[in-house]
Amino acid sequence: MLKKRGILLVLSGPSGAGKGTVTNEVRKSSDTIKYSISATSRKPRIIERDGREYFFMSRETFEEKIEAGKFLEYALVYDNYYGTPRDYVEQILEEGYDCILEIDPQGAMQIKEKMQDAIFIFIAPPSMEELCNRLTSRGTEKPEEIAKRLGNAEKEFKNLPNYDYVIINDKIEKAKDEVLAIMTAEKLKTSRNYETMNLLNKGALS
Amino acid sequence: MLKKRGILLVLSGPSGAGKGTVTNEVRKSSDTIKYSISATSRKPRIIERDGREYFFMSRETFEEKIEAGKFLEYALVYDNYYGTPRDYVEQILEEGYDCILEIDPQGAMQIKEKMQDAIFIFIAPPSMEELCNRLTSRGTEKPEEIAKRLGNAEKEFKNLPNYDYVIINDKIEKAKDEVLAIMTAEKLKTSRNYETMNLLNKGALS
Repeated sequence: MLKKRGILLVLSGPSGAGKGTVTNEVRKSSDTIKYSISATSRKPRIIERDGREYFFMSRETFEEKIEAGKFLEYALVYDNYYGTPRDYVEQILEEGYDCILEIDPQGAMQIKEKMQDAIFIFIAPPSMEELCNRLTSRGTEKPEEIAKRLGNAEKEFKNLPNYDYVIINDKIEKAKDEVLAIMTAEKLKTSRNYETMNLLNKGALS
Repeated sequence: MLKKRGILLVLSGPSGAGKGTVTNEVRKSSDTIKYSISATSRKPRIIERDGREYFFMSRETFEEKIEAGKFLEYALVYDNYYGTPRDYVEQILEEGYDCILEIDPQGAMQIKEKMQDAIFIFIAPPSMEELCNRLTSRGTEKPEEIAKRLGNAEKEFKNLPNYDYVIINDKIEKAKDEVLAIMTAEKLKTSRNYETMNLLNKGALS
């Protein structure tokens, strides 16, 4: 069953749109998805294991891998690098599993340049007002930080043509089902099925 | 809710692949789909009403409409014309309803030239052997007719790149769910949602 190359879904969108929650729900509902593990240059915490929470590596190694094009995307966050290892994701897809990455819009656009067959889904909040509510109710960000995020969200909306699909996340359950429908539909695309259909036409499947 | 333009799905594929059954099951499962009514130049039967089973018209009128480009597709079958009226389908889509047409491959390719935003789904049999079984078990076609249909099926497989999706119809229920997933995914495409997203970004939806 799992011989055909899997699909890479990239879920992105403004901070507060709920892309993390949607991603987790989708992962729980699908048995064709394998987790990708990120790499980081920060020190492991005591409970963390290399290759489980993260691939841990020195800052130097991380930068060498950046140079060698080994990351689908990466970012420097408070002096630590975080990135998505290209080889690891490729391996998952080649095994026939699907992969979902939940990533901020900058990272998503880095991936777009590198993975021609990835599918980009923009997770949008139901309204700007609701986005503001969600950011405020977290209680973790200062007003000026919230204002900045709302400003970013407006910019990210303008980047919509770079995404294949847009899901308005008003209900998690609905948003999850929509991602699953996109996965189903993408796998049925003719362009992904020439090989199977050739076999079928030659009677090799009978 | 139903203000956005609906989508036009064209289900096609070899004779015996089960496109009619799949189409009926999809129609039963969706409340956003409106039936399109075909036109014909044959005489109505006693129980048939104009605008219910068919739009009935004279051969002359039908030919005038062909000339005027009023059909998405048409065919001459045993001296009678059958066709899909363009205006009627357009009206359904403009009202925000979806439309599914189940049509032979020649008709499907006529529609492809005329409707840029239609979605083409190829319904394939699980195998050529199974296709042969299905055609034989109908008991209505002669051996030479069956051989001809199998030959046509092989040609139609070669036309696969003209379709957007391919569904292998091994189980009706699964095939139906796959068509519904395609409908869901297509409606989430960014290109179909610029207007909504503009409103959202301007706060008009809040």
